[in-house]
Amino acid sequence: MNAWHDAPREECGIIGVFAPNEDVARMTFFGLFALQHRGQEAAGIAVADGQTISLYKNVGLVSQVFRAGTLDELRGHYAIGHTRYSTTGSSLLRNAQPFLIETMNGPLALAHNGNLVNSAELRAELMRQGVGFSSSSDSEVMTMMLARDAGPTWEARIKEAMKKWVGAYSLAILTRDCVYAVRDPWGFRPLAVGMLPSGGYAVASETGALRTLGCEAIRDVQPGEIVTLSDKALTITQALPPVNPSARCVFEFIYFARPDQTWEGVNVHAVRQRLGEELAKEWKANVSTTNAADVVIPVPDSSIPAAIGFSRVSGIPYNDGFVKNRYVGRTFIEPTDSLRKRGVGMKFNVIIENVLGKRVIVIDDSIVRGNTTGPLIRLLRQAGAKEVHVCITCPPIKHPCFMGVDMGTYDDLIAHKRTVDEIREEVGADSLTFLSLDGMMRAVGSAEGYCQACFTGQYPVPVDLSSAKTGFELPIIEKRGKKEQ
Amino acid sequence: MNAWHDAPREECGIIGVFAPNEDVARMTFFGLFALQHRGQEAAGIAVADGQTISLYKNVGLVSQVFRAGTLDELRGHYAIGHTRYSTTGSSLLRNAQPFLIETMNGPLALAHNGNLVNSAELRAELMRQGVGFSSSSDSEVMTMMLARDAGPTWEARIKEAMKKWVGAYSLAILTRDCVYAVRDPWGFRPLAVGMLPSGGYAVASETGALRTLGCEAIRDVQPGEIVTLSDKALTITQALPPVNPSARCVFEFIYFARPDQTWEGVNVHAVRQRLGEELAKEWKANVSTTNAADVVIPVPDSSIPAAIGFSRVSGIPYNDGFVKNRYVGRTFIEPTDSLRKRGVGMKFNVIIENVLGKRVIVIDDSIVRGNTTGPLIRLLRQAGAKEVHVCITCPPIKHPCFMGVDMGTYDDLIAHKRTVDEIREEVGADSLTFLSLDGMMRAVGSAEGYCQACFTGQYPVPVDLSSAKTGFELPIIEKRGKKEQ
Amino acid sequence: MNAWHDAPREECGIIGVFAPNEDVARMTFFGLFALQHRGQEAAGIAVADGQTISLYKNVGLVSQVFRAGTLDELRGHYAIGHTRYSTTGSSLLRNAQPFLIETMNGPLALAHNGNLVNSAELRAELMRQGVGFSSSSDSEVMTMMLARDAGPTWEARIKEAMKKWVGAYSLAILTRDCVYAVRDPWGFRPLAVGMLPSGGYAVASETGALRTLGCEAIRDVQPGEIVTLSDKALTITQALPPVNPSARCVFEFIYFARPDQTWEGVNVHAVRQRLGEELAKEWKANVSTTNAADVVIPVPDSSIPAAIGFSRVSGIPYNDGFVKNRYVGRTFIEPTDSLRKRGVGMKFNVIIENVLGKRVIVIDDSIVRGNTTGPLIRLLRQAGAKEVHVCITCPPIKHPCFMGVDMGTYDDLIAHKRTVDEIREEVGADSLTFLSLDGMMRAVGSAEGYCQACFTGQYPVPVDLSSAKTGFELPIIEKRGKKEQ
Amino acid sequence: MNAWHDAPREECGIIGVFAPNEDVARMTFFGLFALQHRGQEAAGIAVADGQTISLYKNVGLVSQVFRAGTLDELRGHYAIGHTRYSTTGSSLLRNAQPFLIETMNGPLALAHNGNLVNSAELRAELMRQGVGFSSSSDSEVMTMMLARDAGPTWEARIKEAMKKWVGAYSLAILTRDCVYAVRDPWGFRPLAVGMLPSGGYAVASETGALRTLGCEAIRDVQPGEIVTLSDKALTITQALPPVNPSARCVFEFIYFARPDQTWEGVNVHAVRQRLGEELAKEWKANVSTTNAADVVIPVPDSSIPAAIGFSRVSGIPYNDGFVKNRYVGRTFIEPTDSLRKRGVGMKFNVIIENVLGKRVIVIDDSIVRGNTTGPLIRLLRQAGAKEVHVCITCPPIKHPCFMGVDMGTYDDLIAHKRTVDEIREEVGADSLTFLSLDGMMRAVGSAEGYCQACFTGQYPVPVDLSSAKTGFELPIIEKRGKKEQ
Repeated sequence: MNAWHDAPREECGIIGVFAPNEDVARMTFFGLFALQHRGQEAAGIAVADGQTISLYKNVGLVSQVFRAGTLDELRGHYAIGHTRYSTTGSSLLRNAQPFLIETMNGPLALAHNGNLVNSAELRAELMRQGVGFSSSSDSEVMTMMLARDAGPTWEARIKEAMKKWVGAYSLAILTRDCVYAVRDPWGFRPLAVGMLPSGGYAVASETGALRTLGCEAIRDVQPGEIVTLSDKALTITQALPPVNPSARCVFEFIYFARPDQTWEGVNVHAVRQRLGEELAKEWKANVSTTNAADVVIPVPDSSIPAAIGFSRVSGIPYNDGFVKNRYVGRTFIEPTDSLRKRGVGMKFNVIIENVLGKRVIVIDDSIVRGNTTGPLIRLLRQAGAKEVHVCITCPPIKHPCFMGVDMGTYDDLIAHKRTVDEIREEVGADSLTFLSLDGMMRAVGSAEGYCQACFTGQYPVPVDLSSAKTGFELPIIEKRGKKEQ
Repeated sequence: MNAWHDAPREECGIIGVFAPNEDVARMTFFGLFALQHRGQEAAGIAVADGQTISLYKNVGLVSQVFRAGTLDELRGHYAIGHTRYSTTGSSLLRNAQPFLIETMNGPLALAHNGNLVNSAELRAELMRQGVGFSSSSDSEVMTMMLARDAGPTWEARIKEAMKKWVGAYSLAILTRDCVYAVRDPWGFRPLAVGMLPSGGYAVASETGALRTLGCEAIRDVQPGEIVTLSDKALTITQALPPVNPSARCVFEFIYFARPDQTWEGVNVHAVRQRLGEELAKEWKANVSTTNAADVVIPVPDSSIPAAIGFSRVSGIPYNDGFVKNRYVGRTFIEPTDSLRKRGVGMKFNVIIENVLGKRVIVIDDSIVRGNTTGPLIRLLRQAGAKEVHVCITCPPIKHPCFMGVDMGTYDDLIAHKRTVDEIREEVGADSLTFLSLDGMMRAVGSAEGYCQACFTGQYPVPVDLSSAKTGFELPIIEKRGKKEQ
Repeated sequence: MNAWHDAPREECGIIGVFAPNEDVARMTFFGLFALQHRGQEAAGIAVADGQTISLYKNVGLVSQVFRAGTLDELRGHYAIGHTRYSTTGSSLLRNAQPFLIETMNGPLALAHNGNLVNSAELRAELMRQGVGFSSSSDSEVMTMMLARDAGPTWEARIKEAMKKWVGAYSLAILTRDCVYAVRDPWGFRPLAVGMLPSGGYAVASETGALRTLGCEAIRDVQPGEIVTLSDKALTITQALPPVNPSARCVFEFIYFARPDQTWEGVNVHAVRQRLGEELAKEWKANVSTTNAADVVIPVPDSSIPAAIGFSRVSGIPYNDGFVKNRYVGRTFIEPTDSLRKRGVGMKFNVIIENVLGKRVIVIDDSIVRGNTTGPLIRLLRQAGAKEVHVCITCPPIKHPCFMGVDMGTYDDLIAHKRTVDEIREEVGADSLTFLSLDGMMRAVGSAEGYCQACFTGQYPVPVDLSSAKTGFELPIIEKRGKKEQ
Repeated sequence: MNAWHDAPREECGIIGVFAPNEDVARMTFFGLFALQHRGQEAAGIAVADGQTISLYKNVGLVSQVFRAGTLDELRGHYAIGHTRYSTTGSSLLRNAQPFLIETMNGPLALAHNGNLVNSAELRAELMRQGVGFSSSSDSEVMTMMLARDAGPTWEARIKEAMKKWVGAYSLAILTRDCVYAVRDPWGFRPLAVGMLPSGGYAVASETGALRTLGCEAIRDVQPGEIVTLSDKALTITQALPPVNPSARCVFEFIYFARPDQTWEGVNVHAVRQRLGEELAKEWKANVSTTNAADVVIPVPDSSIPAAIGFSRVSGIPYNDGFVKNRYVGRTFIEPTDSLRKRGVGMKFNVIIENVLGKRVIVIDDSIVRGNTTGPLIRLLRQAGAKEVHVCITCPPIKHPCFMGVDMGTYDDLIAHKRTVDEIREEVGADSLTFLSLDGMMRAVGSAEGYCQACFTGQYPVPVDLSSAKTGFELPIIEKRGKKEQ
């Protein structure tokens, strides 16, 4: 699948539920289902009944990991869930979440979206104190830090730990009788909380998941906040002052989030349309005439709203050019050589009638490694497209992410050492247009409050550039449970 | 999943490959992959090496059924494949295809798309001659009929059998050293043949699958033809005279086929846009003013082109209103009661910003049982839509299909005994518009040559209406192999 | 496992149950469980409820094939079951039994223990009549022959078919509302019937299985009989006159049957003790003094009673010399080279204290291919045995079996072209003694009525010696379902 | 299976290998295979290559857990393995061993046979220091204690930890480049080391496993020793002085160990024969005449040597009375009611001919809960035994074990509050004889050096009798990975 889509990859989706009158495991399951796009490698649910915590997790899609019988054994009123995208070959059980440990203050489970930039130091410190680790995940480091007796309450202990954590973390934490939702003071990753119609509350990475559960009165968890879901009330604590300006990940809008996500008041689908509109404006300024193309086509699915927006502003007709195979997924069958030459043919087919003899504008969300743009262009030319102009709804990605998005290392990034024209030549386009940083921020609706480090190299937190090479895995023994079949 | 989409269901996709210089099993796998939308219940591949035929089939998606090791054991130059949608609870191994038997003329495998209307009589006749049957499938009846010594060659034997077969059949037949592609004289189901770039030929239910394999010089197998793929040549025999007019299934255009399919010169995506255009014309004629709505939204994915066409003609802006969960599939987890009330919420979420306070036109491909239209409308109203007008790209379906499409029985069909207004009231729409038969045929591009029996009740072949109740299963013993896990 | 035991291999165990007040699927499961030693490759159960027959079968042990849920779906009052040993690499679903087909007279399932010697001709004849075959099994041929309308009742049709069947067949046949137990007129394989304490009847290959079910009034099904189990009564029909003398397989006593089996009045455990006693007498006659050895040890488990009998007659003390690993089974892990040199070490370890410095007599049941005797002797010598004398409880096997026992081909049989002394040298024994044919028959208790063809080459039915090479597989296409994991 | 055998249950078998020229994973696999009788619930292997440690473990038999591909991925020269019997319903992945963690001194894996009596305190102490625990196992406590920086070398750290551990522990510990074998100073559980023919060394719970690997120069690891296997040499350190007298578990001889095990010079098979001989002497003294019985039969397999010994001394003929179903194992199918009444019939059948009309002496190894003796006696009476006399090769078990053997709680033990005659009456025997403590120790060969706490209540280490109720599980969250299928 890697060869079939070139996009940054999200680390996870998280969810937390307190629902006194419900089957919380089943609710959490359907919430994770709505967050499946944020991670397809592993899934897990932990449920607390006031005394103990039960956990089930495994590699695979949410629907593959959980059976009715498995959910039935997870009983209680409090739950958290996690769906994970794993960066490397280590798509393994060991790093699946939630993590669950027994501490002197009772059982503790944690689900994490994001990445700490100082986890190596924190882990080494714990090791010096005699803690052994079972995984390479920074999330296990966070869990073990909460096992320390650093305060009289879980909230106090979480607050103490937050002081030491640097980087991106949206968390759902489960104890015997409470769910805590925590967001780092930079606000890198989204997290929202809502009220359940049957009583109780839920938190999730995206509002779409909350709406799937029927939530109303949805509100973002603010940077630096701890939100507590318990049978007493929903309480909100500003554990750390928010960093100003905040550093929300702009890629949530460009690619990660589902179009029905609304983050701090901004709807993702609307942003994507505006990205296309801004792109059309810049593109028009660059070309001599608006008649320079016959049709605008998206690379489905994420670029469809942008292509529609582009069409509106440019006046060039929108049409579908690619058919996407909906069943592309977890096949490990390698194509034959003769099929391989046809490149992305397994995932995308061209609707020949719509591009034959035409000057085509292709809208795509981003170019990271640059390995799919070329094959897509070749498919269009094979289908008879006269010209292929590529328009991208963000600027060139020149720097890796250290806050939980897998964009690879500097060497992986096609734009790291190449000019736009060099990239254009490499992928074989007639023209290549990237949206400007300003244009992108106009579409998002604000010039600041966002992390743009992958475009600018200006990181909101101090990072160790040398660690970009390793893919952020902590040094680890190989450890494997049952692999997926 | 049944509760989440209301559409007629196709029975199968078939493929055949002769490729002397290729890994034919792997090619067939990727061809089936491109036909996955035609059936997700079971898949199988049979390969011949000149002497024997090897077969592997099982329940599940193509990518679940086949592993690299399985394909490696299927060696030879000739192959056929099948992907199946099964109508009832019998989504079981017993009816998976291809069927493979040893006959006095050597091994024989068969993959079938369609349904014979006289299979019960043919089966009873064979039973009287002492043949026992292992499945309830009409395709096993066809296979056993070919085991009879009715002629000196396979082509002769196929021709003899064709004389007795009444109904829909597009077939890929495999012998020791040949692939035969056969299409019934009515031409109910599509089947096309193309030339492989590496030498050899392929046949498939859709041209998109042939293009995935790199085929050129693609041509429809004509009604009544037997096309022979062997190492000698591609030969075409008009085994039976084509019925005139032919009876191509119009639902291939409305719902089944992938948009990149081109059948007898007509592209599916283009037809769908025209269906939307025709629908807009008829809708405009029915309403007092074109300002009667604020936005046109499709039910993704099949209705997107029609919604775009509708928007163009009506001038009402197109936008996305639903987000479809791409991971909905084979989960057997039932929602909790409180989730169930939210109906289709598992599969579709609304982009609230795009419908709030608006008069919405929803474009959908068809209404069969009518069980999803209501919940979709409720979702829109919950999201604040002011009015919801439903427009359907085909006429009301009033009659079951006997030629291989599962539309259920008369009692299942919501339009069987209800007026349009009764349906509108039942689903809760502000207005409900079905495209007229004439409008639909204008979009398809021809007034005749198509089976419209599900709209009109005029069947192109004599059918036994009483058999509609049983779902076309032949009387059978229960027989089960290993079920999917 | 092949490398770890050298014994002829049985083809199957069969069972049939009519129990109006019981969960017949579960009873059949436990009956198969008690027949597991007769075949570990595949298992299946078919159940009839008066109208239809349900079937579940798969590769694996009985306990692996069936789950509680699977049994729960098999409802009715009549059942048959089968556990299979498969001869070649084709340990596959295709040949698993029972076979189940739909015939003009209703559903029919069949479970078979034995082998027809004329199945190739019978199959060719059916093929000429237009029947296609799904497997390479002679049992499918038998099933299809019963699909013919050769008489007014099932009993009549079975009787007609029996006239054409030549070879070994003990059958359990299931129709809508009846179980039939059938034994060939030569009486090659055992089959017994008993009365269930809760009402109803059961038939099984061995009396031990019947006793596990609580049966009383156990009686052998006689050669040529059809026994009918239905809700009316137990009826017995002498369908064909019994061949005189009969041809019971003597290897049932030597190796196949469980010691608690009693066949035609003769208990297997008692025969095995007498085999050891007879062997001791012959051995004493061959050696100069009874002090020629210090200890008698068996190759566990089948030779333990013989070793005890040998010890009693010879006066040489019995002791355990080998420990058998009870968990040897379905591992496909190959040992390392250094482990491989230790030969059978994976399955057998020596109790050094019991053989060190001693002259050891080893009792084994038979030598077929001769591949384990040598390694066993080496293990004893490594453990310090001073002398190793091997005594076998049957004569040299010089001819293959055509009636359902896999002894390999002529070339496989170590005794086919070698003298006893050549075999002794090849396996490295200090002496090698085979029990004489007369001695063996004395232990069994009768000089005639048994098939001794594997020792004498005198086959009770005409056989095609050339077919011994192919391992009795009928010519077949490869056909595979889901393989065991 | 619980219902089918009444015996104390061992916790584990362990193994360690250093083999520079071998596939150590495969060697460890075959070693575990030979230790399978010590635990059938889970298995695991960890391998070190000088830098990192790879681990694979899962629930199931050794042969089910490991595939060839799994072993191939475990590369290196150092390995440890574990096979586990789990006491309660928690037969789950979480407690499977080896445990593997990353520490400040590198990766560390541990496999443990035994049970600490002070693990609850040790765990609480670690928790107070901020360590979180993932399992309820005392072995994880031991692993985490070794993560502390308590000395400059692994040997020093192990030595420090040993000072705090109270109870039974035979350990195989794996670091980057070393295997350590450790035995507690009481010597509760066996552990032996041997030299591999290809170079290198191996340690294992039993000498039979070492012999399977071809080991020579086998020597017990002595109480309190740390034996180091590395590429430098085999070094032996007396880390703690041995407790005198030692406390070897006498049940290793009575039931756990395989007959080819030789522990501190004493062979298990020989002890079992002597147990039968001593029992015969005591039995003779108790009965008026040696003609009081007609036949001595064992409950297979563990009691066969004792029955032979009993027969020799008593002069009463030995014979087999029970047939044991070799395939009884992991079936979860419950028998029907009518089958349930037949009790142990699933596992044992009677050879009627050998007991009918006879006065039978049954030899069994022990009576723990007492739930199988009664059904076995009933089986014999149903088969026509005239009298049934039960003789047990050890004294009544009156006290639970705290050192790693699952005998249940006080309430579970049938002999805790009953006299021998009450037990006799409860099981329905004509007479019941337990071997005396003195007789047992004579058979073992020494009056001291053994733990006899389960008979006497004299524990060699201070125990908390209240913990016997809980089954020794540490308080834990439920945590589950993929369960066996």
